[in-house]
Amino acid sequence: MSDFNDLIIFIQKEINKSLKRLPIPDKPSYLYDPIRYSLKGGGKRLRPILVHLMGRAFNIDPDELMKIALSIELLHNFTLVHDDIMDKDTMRHGQKTIHTKWDTSSAILAGDGIYTIAQIILNTLSGIDNAVSSYFNKTTLEICEGQALDKKFENEPIITEKAYLNMIEKKTGALLSAAAALPVIYNGESQSFINYCDSFGRYLGNGFQIQDDLLEITSDEKTMGKSLESDIYKCKKTIMVIKAHNRYPQKWDKLISNSSKNNIKNNIHSFFDETGIIKETKSSAEFYFNSSREAIKKLKIHNKNELLQFVDLIEKRTY
Amino acid sequence: MSDFNDLIIFIQKEINKSLKRLPIPDKPSYLYDPIRYSLKGGGKRLRPILVHLMGRAFNIDPDELMKIALSIELLHNFTLVHDDIMDKDTMRHGQKTIHTKWDTSSAILAGDGIYTIAQIILNTLSGIDNAVSSYFNKTTLEICEGQALDKKFENEPIITEKAYLNMIEKKTGALLSAAAALPVIYNGESQSFINYCDSFGRYLGNGFQIQDDLLEITSDEKTMGKSLESDIYKCKKTIMVIKAHNRYPQKWDKLISNSSKNNIKNNIHSFFDETGIIKETKSSAEFYFNSSREAIKKLKIHNKNELLQFVDLIEKRTY
Repeated sequence: MSDFNDLIIFIQKEINKSLKRLPIPDKPSYLYDPIRYSLKGGGKRLRPILVHLMGRAFNIDPDELMKIALSIELLHNFTLVHDDIMDKDTMRHGQKTIHTKWDTSSAILAGDGIYTIAQIILNTLSGIDNAVSSYFNKTTLEICEGQALDKKFENEPIITEKAYLNMIEKKTGALLSAAAALPVIYNGESQSFINYCDSFGRYLGNGFQIQDDLLEITSDEKTMGKSLESDIYKCKKTIMVIKAHNRYPQKWDKLISNSSKNNIKNNIHSFFDETGIIKETKSSAEFYFNSSREAIKKLKIHNKNELLQFVDLIEKRTY
Repeated sequence: MSDFNDLIIFIQKEINKSLKRLPIPDKPSYLYDPIRYSLKGGGKRLRPILVHLMGRAFNIDPDELMKIALSIELLHNFTLVHDDIMDKDTMRHGQKTIHTKWDTSSAILAGDGIYTIAQIILNTLSGIDNAVSSYFNKTTLEICEGQALDKKFENEPIITEKAYLNMIEKKTGALLSAAAALPVIYNGESQSFINYCDSFGRYLGNGFQIQDDLLEITSDEKTMGKSLESDIYKCKKTIMVIKAHNRYPQKWDKLISNSSKNNIKNNIHSFFDETGIIKETKSSAEFYFNSSREAIKKLKIHNKNELLQFVDLIEKRTY
């Protein structure tokens, strides 16, 4: 595990160095200051790390691989910048969101710019055909669909667990799929190989998001780098909120209306605990992580172990 | 001219048919309803028409050409949807803007989706290398820079005419350049050929925008399909406002503060007229249109005449 950890830290540093080295112009500062600020922000770089791990399976030139990795990280960044406006989130990775530090117009434009730069980087890959860019853009559209469902859910009284899982697969899973699949597509591998990577990413994404929902209720603000409970106050539907609301409608509504800002987190935590919702959600996350491991096992690559350890890393994260 | 008009109407109809036929999914409606609404809206389709005219020079398969044309129109559409949020514009082509009919979140997401669909369409072009997509995305980044400058100008007391012309070249000219250059790049023509197309588009764009500024003050709301004077009330800097403000700062400020909603347009019109600003602006537009004609004359293509007539069409438009 230690060698693997060293590898991850090495890749992460390389990604951060490459992000810093991106030739983002100085002017117009209205566009590029927020973009630079956004790229300087924290982030675990899990998606570009996955790109590098998958690319190692085919010994792809790390410089070329970095182009895919950066374009995936920038795509991720772009969606966060725009989502933060839509969700009115004020903090991200421990720093003010762009629309909070500047304004909505700056954040819209910064997001547009980041996504465009992602594509410009992707287009510097040598000898690619349409397949890479095509998959990249289909991924973005799916992420937009996921965000659309998420926004729609805010105003719906009942969300089924199935609908929620479909939403997070689009919003989170699609991008992890792309991180896994793009190096494979770039290397000209078969459709069935691409499909396994796609499944792997989707399972991993669902595991990741369900675990994120769990961490939101079990972790603290400082560790998460964003204001907790904010999602709950805004009636953001997590898998646990959906289970609670669908199964115990009266009890849940009563709990929410009788709680104050100071005790709501504890009250919710106890409720999820007593009803077995935490346990059930943990085992649901476990199911998705194990399914992603099964998908990896089907891949004919020499560094399966690295990908399996990557799943462990995500499963064991505490923030 | 009649044959040419028939050709333009034919191309315009084909573009509208193709836009209608785009396989935009039904769900999630939160994402796709605003996108469908936006694409149904009016618009002169000047940019995709230019794509077709330029493609005719090389006898490019019209179906392939249509992919470039649609991606250019969608790129244009995407920038309008996001610009309308930033500029708080409520009407566009005679219908409510997306953020007015729905909300800001829907409009941000619709814009993102439209731009992504534009790229998905571009990637269905057969046998393209990175050059087409690369130019397409560099164009978008330049348009973002133009919009950033435009937003920045809102809060600056003095804008030079040179800075304004640089801004509109990015905001308007870059896309017309792309409309002219992409078929040429797709056909694998030389860099010098691409450069002439680029210059042609930039001159045409500046002519187009300066004329737009003129029409804003000489046309009426019904013809323009958007609320006039709104730009003036919001201190939007047009080339004429810049000239007036820079040369007659006191007189201009006095005129604005002494005018009511009912007489401001007439007052401004008279002021621009008396000071010779209208005349000067007209001759500036003429200069750019003539420069775009000069660029066309340098192109070795059989349908120069169509492109020259296209410039005439734009120069003579009344809305």
